[in-house]
Amino acid sequence: MTDAVSLIRAKRDGHHLTGTDISWLFEAYARGEVADEQMSALLMAIYFRGLDPAELSTWTAAMIASGDRLDLSAIQKPTVDKHSTGGVGDKVSLILAPLVASCGAAVPQLSGRGLGHTGGTLDKLESIPGFRAGLTPAETLAVLASAGCVICAAGSGLAPADGRLYALRDVTGTVESIPLIASSIMSKKIAEGTSALVLDVKVGTGAFMTSRDQARELARTMVALGAEHQVRTRALLTRMDTPLGRAVGNAVEVAEAVEALQGHGPPDLMEVTLALARQMLALAGLTADPAADPAADPAADPAAALADGRALATYRAMVRAQGGDPDAPLPRAAHTHLVPAPGSGWLTRLDALAVGTAAWRLGAGRARKEDEVSATAGIICLAKPGDRVQAGQPVLELRADEPERFGPALAALDGAIAVSEQGPPPHVSPVIEYVSAQ
Amino acid sequence: MTDAVSLIRAKRDGHHLTGTDISWLFEAYARGEVADEQMSALLMAIYFRGLDPAELSTWTAAMIASGDRLDLSAIQKPTVDKHSTGGVGDKVSLILAPLVASCGAAVPQLSGRGLGHTGGTLDKLESIPGFRAGLTPAETLAVLASAGCVICAAGSGLAPADGRLYALRDVTGTVESIPLIASSIMSKKIAEGTSALVLDVKVGTGAFMTSRDQARELARTMVALGAEHQVRTRALLTRMDTPLGRAVGNAVEVAEAVEALQGHGPPDLMEVTLALARQMLALAGLTADPAADPAADPAADPAAALADGRALATYRAMVRAQGGDPDAPLPRAAHTHLVPAPGSGWLTRLDALAVGTAAWRLGAGRARKEDEVSATAGIICLAKPGDRVQAGQPVLELRADEPERFGPALAALDGAIAVSEQGPPPHVSPVIEYVSAQ
Repeated sequence: MTDAVSLIRAKRDGHHLTGTDISWLFEAYARGEVADEQMSALLMAIYFRGLDPAELSTWTAAMIASGDRLDLSAIQKPTVDKHSTGGVGDKVSLILAPLVASCGAAVPQLSGRGLGHTGGTLDKLESIPGFRAGLTPAETLAVLASAGCVICAAGSGLAPADGRLYALRDVTGTVESIPLIASSIMSKKIAEGTSALVLDVKVGTGAFMTSRDQARELARTMVALGAEHQVRTRALLTRMDTPLGRAVGNAVEVAEAVEALQGHGPPDLMEVTLALARQMLALAGLTADPAADPAADPAADPAAALADGRALATYRAMVRAQGGDPDAPLPRAAHTHLVPAPGSGWLTRLDALAVGTAAWRLGAGRARKEDEVSATAGIICLAKPGDRVQAGQPVLELRADEPERFGPALAALDGAIAVSEQGPPPHVSPVIEYVSAQ
Repeated sequence: MTDAVSLIRAKRDGHHLTGTDISWLFEAYARGEVADEQMSALLMAIYFRGLDPAELSTWTAAMIASGDRLDLSAIQKPTVDKHSTGGVGDKVSLILAPLVASCGAAVPQLSGRGLGHTGGTLDKLESIPGFRAGLTPAETLAVLASAGCVICAAGSGLAPADGRLYALRDVTGTVESIPLIASSIMSKKIAEGTSALVLDVKVGTGAFMTSRDQARELARTMVALGAEHQVRTRALLTRMDTPLGRAVGNAVEVAEAVEALQGHGPPDLMEVTLALARQMLALAGLTADPAADPAADPAADPAAALADGRALATYRAMVRAQGGDPDAPLPRAAHTHLVPAPGSGWLTRLDALAVGTAAWRLGAGRARKEDEVSATAGIICLAKPGDRVQAGQPVLELRADEPERFGPALAALDGAIAVSEQGPPPHVSPVIEYVSAQ
């Protein structure tokens, strides 16, 4: 007979938990026989001891089995989704989902809200007048069938154990564990029913993972979990040392995403978006594998769907299908404040964590999941690393609904901007590397 | 500003917690602002990372500060107490407290109940008709003043944070942590108000600590904590590979303790009891330090108080002062079952853990703190390691109120008894070593 204390002690002492142990644990936790304090102690033991591949596999399967799985079998197109570990200015989903859908895939993007210094895709879309992120499973399927993509809240029916565990991890200092992060992300994405998945694992000061080795380990762990559950999965490691694109916030990021869909996106944002799109289309079987054949049919390249307006049309159809008005003007903040360059030369640093934290303090993010976010607060990066600036020239435009937000935001930006007369700094691609199943 | 998550993460990552951090933690925990699941995660992080001496000192001080301290200043004699980490057949307190009191000290022995395979002093005494273990602070002081010693429940007013933490540790696999054990024991003993303390740290199969190195570390940690809080503290490491004395249970141990007070105790029990008594009297300043001067005045030796009946008289006075009748016959179990020697030769093993577990299954111990214990259930060791036995000769006499208890108890005894024709095994002293302040 298994009991919670024996199981905690086994993990604490570095022993292997069997599939039976883990299944029992999740069932007993759902029944209330394993208490939150026992689960917390176990999560901390896992933080120290990890989960081996077999444990991680049954742990993830138990989280999926705790709820429903979305049935996408009625969708006539290949399904493919993307997950990002979260970054500053990361509006990629808003462009990518309609872009990939406009190339023939169905993109069921079930997303979360932002917490801390990184934004949430749903928070951004909700700055569009009328947009609804909370859909029923039937509505989700209907939007997916009609528009080709849907971006909505995951809902509590999918992997509910993950929701409970995440809430516990958040208050018990057990968030930063690679197996726990991997099983949390993958259980929701597998329960969502997608056939293929591309993971954008961000690395850098503004990312959850600041070390490339850790990011690679997380990517490999998630790719292996996807393969085990018959979800074709690949990962990209991408840079998050400076905001992606120029806008950081909610409405400001929607505006930038629409410009990108019109073909006017900033180069770093477009490079990441197209790299992800090519992987998604290849995994969906709609184009040749970009890794295998880089000179594949250019007409099938997603860049063509940006250039000819198909991606924008799909975006507008999705927004409309979710109750939003794509033609309504986006809300604007009442107050702005400019941050000047501290000297003349090349901008060498515009720190992602500092900019993300400043945007959060301006009102764009939330400290607790119950908090409201401001649709209009945020930051526009008027210059980016590699740009030439003059002392006093504005580098950042801060936006807020209340002027008293600027002080705390400026404090977060202390030391975030560096200018050097040595330069220009060498260009580095925002895409670091690709991780496929072994 | 401190918050629980930052504090948990700091400990998790091996950083030092300040005195301010730890004081805040205990105050916030008492106010309900730090949740049990947060405390559990922190306890598991402490299991892995430990507490450095400064942390342990403030941790213990915070547990003491969570409740009252007993004021023993009205007692005109030097106060000295003993704590045992728990063993099988460990009825030492029942003999030791009156023995040391009869030599001129005041012994305020605030005790706990048994959990698992080791017995509890209060459970044993409650097998005496009329005996009350639950006394008010005023009653505790009155018994101590009149009889010279008192053995009663610690009550919830002393170090209540320890009570909450112990209950959490018990269900979260975080019991086995030397700093947490040390602070739990010492916070209660310091709050009890004694001026001096001798610790009996048991080592062996039937003890909490099975390794001598760990036991020594625990002893040193507790001795240092005592010194810090102006409690003169020493520790003995004593063997717990086989039951101490011959009786294991409740009423059976009281009977053996009374025999010991009459001068007829088994040698191992008397050796441990007298070693502890000599240390207590030395710490209380009533005799020369036995470590410094082993040839001290024999008349002042506690053995004299056993021989001349003073210790027994003090025991009877204490029992009477706590409502018990020292002349009432002790209850006896309805059923007995004999366990024979598996061969002829010298008894080389009579395993403490197995005997303790068997006694527990017979009804002498409790699995959960709400459980009742049987006054009469238990085991009499008819032979002890070193004795010559014939195949089939009874080695153990099991006693129970219900005959269906014998099966599970016998299962626990599988392999517990070993007999060898090579022999006799060398005599080893039950006292392994002494640990004093550095």
